Amino acid sequence: MSGWLAIAGLGPGAAQLITPEVTQALSEASDLVGYGPYVARVPARPGLTCHGSDNREELDRASLALRLAAQGKRVVVVSSGDPGVFAMAAAVFEAIDAGDPAWRDLDIRVLPGISAMFAAAARIGAPLGHDFCAINLSDNLKPWELIERRLRLAAQAGFVIALYNPLSKARPWQLGRALELLRGELPDSVPVIFASAVSDAGETIDTTTLRDAMADRADMRTLVLIGSSQTRLIARSGRPAFVYTPRSAGAAS
Amino acid sequence: MSGWLAIAGLGPGAAQLITPEVTQALSEASDLVGYGPYVARVPARPGLTCHGSDNREELDRASLALRLAAQGKRVVVVSSGDPGVFAMAAAVFEAIDAGDPAWRDLDIRVLPGISAMFAAAARIGAPLGHDFCAINLSDNLKPWELIERRLRLAAQAGFVIALYNPLSKARPWQLGRALELLRGELPDSVPVIFASAVSDAGETIDTTTLRDAMADRADMRTLVLIGSSQTRLIARSGRPAFVYTPRSAGAAS
Repeated sequence: MSGWLAIAGLGPGAAQLITPEVTQALSEASDLVGYGPYVARVPARPGLTCHGSDNREELDRASLALRLAAQGKRVVVVSSGDPGVFAMAAAVFEAIDAGDPAWRDLDIRVLPGISAMFAAAARIGAPLGHDFCAINLSDNLKPWELIERRLRLAAQAGFVIALYNPLSKARPWQLGRALELLRGELPDSVPVIFASAVSDAGETIDTTTLRDAMADRADMRTLVLIGSSQTRLIARSGRPAFVYTPRSAGAAS
Repeated sequence: MSGWLAIAGLGPGAAQLITPEVTQALSEASDLVGYGPYVARVPARPGLTCHGSDNREELDRASLALRLAAQGKRVVVVSSGDPGVFAMAAAVFEAIDAGDPAWRDLDIRVLPGISAMFAAAARIGAPLGHDFCAINLSDNLKPWELIERRLRLAAQAGFVIALYNPLSKARPWQLGRALELLRGELPDSVPVIFASAVSDAGETIDTTTLRDAMADRADMRTLVLIGSSQTRLIARSGRPAFVYTPRSAGAAS
């Protein structure tokens, strides 16, 4: 049996940000599994069967990919960004943990990608230049109280905070509540960055302050970066300011 | 003046993990600036001047790169991993912030790379599949007390923790102290991963538990991942276990 399963990160959007390792796996694949819009990012070719599916069906998708690999197919599960960050890799390992014991012996690889937060950070400077955290703001799979607790502790720790999945039609109020909570923990002047469709057509990156940050600026494709009290702006004439967080910090940071 | 400055991430080591965007910038560069061993990873070619320097000279290196770009050179500052994560991007923006105002008008780009923590995570499963944080364990630029505070808050938040720069000759005791502190906050059974030279010759990735984790297992090239109470192992026969953190979490996590 020569089947294998690769869980691959397509990066934020631009082809220039896909690693050669991922490109090679895609060229060798017999089957492509993933959320429809991500599967659609891979050019069609003879011999490649595409299994696009709806959002929120991660475990079904993972099981399908594992069954195909067990049948001897060469399967790539595609994720946006990095597959290990709020994407398909954890879902595949959950399926393995709960599924057919034979799946553990499959040839399974995770192929890292450029994550949304690093792509967004790179576009405006180095906001993640100091200690930071990443929080999935979706309360589909964890209680909202836990998310609030994490936001508070992260702000108290002085982490720059990357918020994934800040908003959707089914979760309209969570980002507004998160910003309100953070205003109680951090200075009003802290930079907040809304980065949408990074490296892709329609990219927009806006920097504002925690005081002025409005939740309705975000949509499903937005990553929100909340600076720490140390995060700084470098003004430029005629162009957006650079944003960075210095490497050094004092005792009170 | 057609000079430019790109701050580029070379990824963890393997050429297969360097993005086409970075490869293109390297092919167009006139000058390469960076820590000696990273500069040495780029193949020499006629027309490319290499400025390798010692570790811990980040600001001097950043200023040199900015001066060269201001003179019209096409400069790539190389970092390992992602340049925005405990690497050269923050140092360059610190130099711009404190330096010649004309530097703000230079053509400056940050080119993201595959960070050490995502490459390490990909090698063994999906340990960063839930909320996580990244902490630079070096107390060269921040007080040790702040690091201890962040470790405690991160553990209390239930973050998986990636520790960068865990150990060096000049900082021999910090990782041991960090592990001791975390043993007071987290279950003994929490998985701990020591990942060294990921994707490169001599790669080693060992998974142990917080109870058994020994600081002397790490060196300068090691990234340490500390699981949360939710992080799980999937045993395999004849191969290392997969490690992953489920996407879901209960209220007590």
